[in-house]
Amino acid sequence: MATHFADRLNAAVVAKRSAVVVGIDPRPDRFPSAFAVSECTDRAAITAQIDAFGSELIRIVAPKVPAVKFQLAFYEAFGSEGLRALWKNVDEAKRAGLVVILDGKRNDIGSTAEAYAQGYLGRLARGRSAGPVAEADAMTVNPYLGSDGVLPFSKVAGEQGKGLFVLVRTSNPSSAEFQELVAEGKPVYRHVADQVARWAEPLRGESGYSAIGAVIGATYPDQLLELRQAIPGVFFLVPGYGAQGGHAETVASAFDEQGLGALINSSRDLIFAHQRPEIQREVGDDWHAAVSLAVDLMNAELRDRTAMGQL
Amino acid sequence: MATHFADRLNAAVVAKRSAVVVGIDPRPDRFPSAFAVSECTDRAAITAQIDAFGSELIRIVAPKVPAVKFQLAFYEAFGSEGLRALWKNVDEAKRAGLVVILDGKRNDIGSTAEAYAQGYLGRLARGRSAGPVAEADAMTVNPYLGSDGVLPFSKVAGEQGKGLFVLVRTSNPSSAEFQELVAEGKPVYRHVADQVARWAEPLRGESGYSAIGAVIGATYPDQLLELRQAIPGVFFLVPGYGAQGGHAETVASAFDEQGLGALINSSRDLIFAHQRPEIQREVGDDWHAAVSLAVDLMNAELRDRTAMGQL
Repeated sequence: MATHFADRLNAAVVAKRSAVVVGIDPRPDRFPSAFAVSECTDRAAITAQIDAFGSELIRIVAPKVPAVKFQLAFYEAFGSEGLRALWKNVDEAKRAGLVVILDGKRNDIGSTAEAYAQGYLGRLARGRSAGPVAEADAMTVNPYLGSDGVLPFSKVAGEQGKGLFVLVRTSNPSSAEFQELVAEGKPVYRHVADQVARWAEPLRGESGYSAIGAVIGATYPDQLLELRQAIPGVFFLVPGYGAQGGHAETVASAFDEQGLGALINSSRDLIFAHQRPEIQREVGDDWHAAVSLAVDLMNAELRDRTAMGQL
Repeated sequence: MATHFADRLNAAVVAKRSAVVVGIDPRPDRFPSAFAVSECTDRAAITAQIDAFGSELIRIVAPKVPAVKFQLAFYEAFGSEGLRALWKNVDEAKRAGLVVILDGKRNDIGSTAEAYAQGYLGRLARGRSAGPVAEADAMTVNPYLGSDGVLPFSKVAGEQGKGLFVLVRTSNPSSAEFQELVAEGKPVYRHVADQVARWAEPLRGESGYSAIGAVIGATYPDQLLELRQAIPGVFFLVPGYGAQGGHAETVASAFDEQGLGALINSSRDLIFAHQRPEIQREVGDDWHAAVSLAVDLMNAELRDRTAMGQL
């Protein structure tokens, strides 16, 4: 784990020629029939299916993409059994050579924030498994508490060669309620972005990119462009592609001139691709083929229509 | 669980004549000698000590206070074993008649937010234990994502007779970075507070208080006063008492004229009271007596110097 997080991430993007992050959101109510559960399925059986669904996804996507993002809510919702499934999936993803991002949007201060960071990225995480690879690479963090709420995470990330992605502009419609309030001549999300740039500065790697990145929704292409120019060297994790309305053109401005610096996340459009009519027309009801095709199509769209095609 | 959350909370405050919420932050590095762990202690032994420490705290404080607040980070940091200890402690606190608040500051949108809410407060939480009482009463939520990030939580809370506390103004020094930015003539925290009042409106109970409350730090007495007047009927969960500098005078303005509407949280000053010199002078190195005395002193301060003394 000696290499800098951003350098590992860039290397993975180049090696796979892909900027796609597959979001693993194991919602049992949308599982394909091979993993079906019902309202009556007991907790142990549900978490076994979550584990199996995650494992199979990892096997399908590992050759095609640099990174996966686990949505913690769908694991945590099932308590300790759910977290056991999470860490099994994390272990499998690491063994498959993927960069692992944990999407938990944690936020707290001081030793509490450090406990989250150590538990998900650091010293405590290493105690989870006998093997050497059951460690996540990065986690998402909510900035509402200010520097006290981010620096304990970045301290652990810096020490352990890990990364953070700080929420700057989220992809959901109501993100404007607070994030677009204008104070001192600029919106709140821009205040957060400028602060992210300051937090990022001490943690730059050889690629010029920092271990501290930003989450910026695909649904705001003008803001992606503004922020790409304003905070160079900050990796963007871009949700909202596909189901939420983002597409290759709207995320093109997230990439730098070399085609680096952006990870485009899609979750349900990929992992539940068997429910998309245009995918079904191609592969019928074969979930495995549907996921594979959906990832291939997203990779092709980004290669054809953004700067990452030159990689 | 038929009773409205705010009504249950008010009843508990009146019954105990206490507005103190004991924060259970099981930091192993500060445990008293009876629960001591070392860097070499294995994970199962550490989580057993966390469970034992939490259980003993609950036994000490249950007769004296209406509610406890569990800091999820210190449980989650130990993965699935940590979450098992959390739910055991939650179960014990409920059996002891306490209102249970889970402090996880979760935030996400749509079905993801609903998964968090169902997992901690709702349908999925009920599957955790054979017994009928292993359910938390409320959880903390971060508002940065706007209504999309709060309404799925309040939907579950409303359906299940549970509550939320939305971060409005946090007690830490750097909370000013974003929360005090002034937009459209008022600071961001006030925009959030006004939105909390709107989210709270449909969920008022018989007491006039809503199931949707707000987190507002004890370190900002002027803002407590401003917000108590601005958003009546919204319960305030007030951290920052003691170690962070808050005291009875600074939190007095959080209470309404009847002495209701505020819960004053203290964590480390109570649960690690054996490390406070002024407490040690009274009880020596008896951790049990130290916690008991610290809670009694805090109760007495609030009864003597705030409106809750009239209860």
